[in-house]
Amino acid sequence: MSEKGRVEAFSDGVFAIAITLLVLEIHVPEIERHQSLWTALGREWPSYFAYVVGFLIIGVMWLNHHTTFGCIATVNRPLLLLNLLLLMAIAAVPWPVELVARYLDRGDQASVAVAVLGLLMTAMSVTFTAFWQYALRHPALLAEGVSVPASGRLRFALGLAGYPALTLLSFVSAPVTLALHGVLALYYAFDQTLARAAAPAGA
Amino acid sequence: MSEKGRVEAFSDGVFAIAITLLVLEIHVPEIERHQSLWTALGREWPSYFAYVVGFLIIGVMWLNHHTTFGCIATVNRPLLLLNLLLLMAIAAVPWPVELVARYLDRGDQASVAVAVLGLLMTAMSVTFTAFWQYALRHPALLAEGVSVPASGRLRFALGLAGYPALTLLSFVSAPVTLALHGVLALYYAFDQTLARAAAPAGA
Amino acid sequence: MSEKGRVEAFSDGVFAIAITLLVLEIHVPEIERHQSLWTALGREWPSYFAYVVGFLIIGVMWLNHHTTFGCIATVNRPLLLLNLLLLMAIAAVPWPVELVARYLDRGDQASVAVAVLGLLMTAMSVTFTAFWQYALRHPALLAEGVSVPASGRLRFALGLAGYPALTLLSFVSAPVTLALHGVLALYYAFDQTLARAAAPAGA
Amino acid sequence: MSEKGRVEAFSDGVFAIAITLLVLEIHVPEIERHQSLWTALGREWPSYFAYVVGFLIIGVMWLNHHTTFGCIATVNRPLLLLNLLLLMAIAAVPWPVELVARYLDRGDQASVAVAVLGLLMTAMSVTFTAFWQYALRHPALLAEGVSVPASGRLRFALGLAGYPALTLLSFVSAPVTLALHGVLALYYAFDQTLARAAAPAGA
Repeated sequence: MSEKGRVEAFSDGVFAIAITLLVLEIHVPEIERHQSLWTALGREWPSYFAYVVGFLIIGVMWLNHHTTFGCIATVNRPLLLLNLLLLMAIAAVPWPVELVARYLDRGDQASVAVAVLGLLMTAMSVTFTAFWQYALRHPALLAEGVSVPASGRLRFALGLAGYPALTLLSFVSAPVTLALHGVLALYYAFDQTLARAAAPAGA
Repeated sequence: MSEKGRVEAFSDGVFAIAITLLVLEIHVPEIERHQSLWTALGREWPSYFAYVVGFLIIGVMWLNHHTTFGCIATVNRPLLLLNLLLLMAIAAVPWPVELVARYLDRGDQASVAVAVLGLLMTAMSVTFTAFWQYALRHPALLAEGVSVPASGRLRFALGLAGYPALTLLSFVSAPVTLALHGVLALYYAFDQTLARAAAPAGA
Repeated sequence: MSEKGRVEAFSDGVFAIAITLLVLEIHVPEIERHQSLWTALGREWPSYFAYVVGFLIIGVMWLNHHTTFGCIATVNRPLLLLNLLLLMAIAAVPWPVELVARYLDRGDQASVAVAVLGLLMTAMSVTFTAFWQYALRHPALLAEGVSVPASGRLRFALGLAGYPALTLLSFVSAPVTLALHGVLALYYAFDQTLARAAAPAGA
Repeated sequence: MSEKGRVEAFSDGVFAIAITLLVLEIHVPEIERHQSLWTALGREWPSYFAYVVGFLIIGVMWLNHHTTFGCIATVNRPLLLLNLLLLMAIAAVPWPVELVARYLDRGDQASVAVAVLGLLMTAMSVTFTAFWQYALRHPALLAEGVSVPASGRLRFALGLAGYPALTLLSFVSAPVTLALHGVLALYYAFDQTLARAAAPAGA
């Protein structure tokens, strides 16, 4: 397999494992014999909410990582290290997701938990932008015919501005901000800017 | 690798990880020095039962996912998102399996635990049907020569009706219903309808 | 990818995950500030011993699974299900390994723990033999030119007799039996019978 | 897939899983309603530090493993076993990382924890050198045109001397030594000696 192929396979592995580890944060409640399991399971709603949002975040990041690699023809050591930094942020997602699951129904602490998720997403957005900018400035690494429309730059700018904004918004409403993280992931899933840039290198 | 190939590899990763994480629900009993380890291990029978059924469920779903992808030539964003929803249900399976392992020998709570498994399987069946119906209605996505016999539709209908039925049946007998989940998985393993539809797109 | 290729990739995933999950059984000891961490770590020796043996068992099983698939040209549903049963045993290995890690320094309970490992290995040996016998009896599934020398049959017989013997031996000495599990794995690593049978189907 | 290809895929799987399991050592703090979650999260700084260093260690080892395999044309059983020993060390990394995360802010115990990481890295360095020396002495296993400059030998010598040195240094300053583990990983990421040796066997 080419060096690029093995990097993609390794990255896919990290995405697949991180997304599947999310389930470990959904705890099985410990109850007494006379208590209702339905009630106990209902009280765990923040876990289910956090699981769905975390799954969308990692799943859509995988889609975009994959599209980005469609624009790249070959990799060098700095790009590999930038990819490693990006994976370091992705692989960490299960931790703020568990934090949110534990504290979303706990008043002010919920805001802190969702803000930590926002900070990690900001870090991810920064490393993803660095990865992409590095590639754009080294045309030798790019697949033939790749060109990025102005809206592509907008897209990255949105992430760089959007995640800090969501971090601040956590202190207004934690559950609404968590839902917005899911919505932003879905927006990224449907935005086709990158996909169009990648098309010439297509499958 | 083609976009379709990478989606298959990513999905396979999620299936393989979810199925291997099942073992984490089999706990090592904590006992005192003078107690019998055989007895303590025997008391964990619901864990072993749940492990076997969970393994069959995910393993056979993997077989079918794989057969379904044999009918598909190319993927688009909506299909990728439907696949992501399906994986969201698959990756969650270790959670109800642990729930069942913990509560199967605990009277009424056993029924609730097995019913939760039934609800998740219903959700999986719905997303799998949505994935498949979407593909069928977009022939451009299908491999050449794919056609689905009427019995193929029956098969999906069986899942859509069968899992809600098993959910209700949990309240009659939890252990019997759990066994029926295993039996239904084996039925899906041997049913060749989809495989026949996929044949023209073969290996 | 061909059906056989995807089954190999899925199986490899399960092997890789099960072998890597073994590390979760090596616990970080909880000690007070004035206690010696070296002493506490030393007391965890059964964890390290169990980790090494478990790693050899799964790693060598992976080698052999891989060699076996070298003899196979195509797969059908019964063979897929036999492979699933084999993976069910493989994926369960981290559980007896944790059991052994916890009870190896606890008198009689150590024998029970190592015997449980022996029983799981017996189950694995039975499913592996069933898988192999099924393939041999369906020459259409085999790669061209594959033939199994008598010593190949001996090899499977050794597993079928050896693991029950080790199960019984656990009650004589648990640590010696655990070491013998590692030795038996190494024997299987170097025995080339299967590899020779597979040669005509080679890389 | 060729035997070499499957070994690479299996090894990549172990690397990807070990690196992603690191996140499990970052615990979600348990606090009371009136306490500050920010403060509690701040107190967990050793976890974040250990996560970053552990991620660099495994990620860069993956890069180098991959480069090394670029020099290899075919594998035999002894090389497979040496690779398995190397993976045994890699897959164990999450354990000293958790040890460091738990004890880095605990006086003398911090030195022991970082020394244990150093010992594991020494073991990894020894098995990696053994793997590489074995391959060099069996030219039939090497890709055509591979030759290792003297600086390549220096590189392995550095690991064999550097990790024991870091182990001793742990007793001078645990946090500085932990940081040096990260720096050494980055050095290995940028050193191109092996990459140059591998070039003739390129993608």
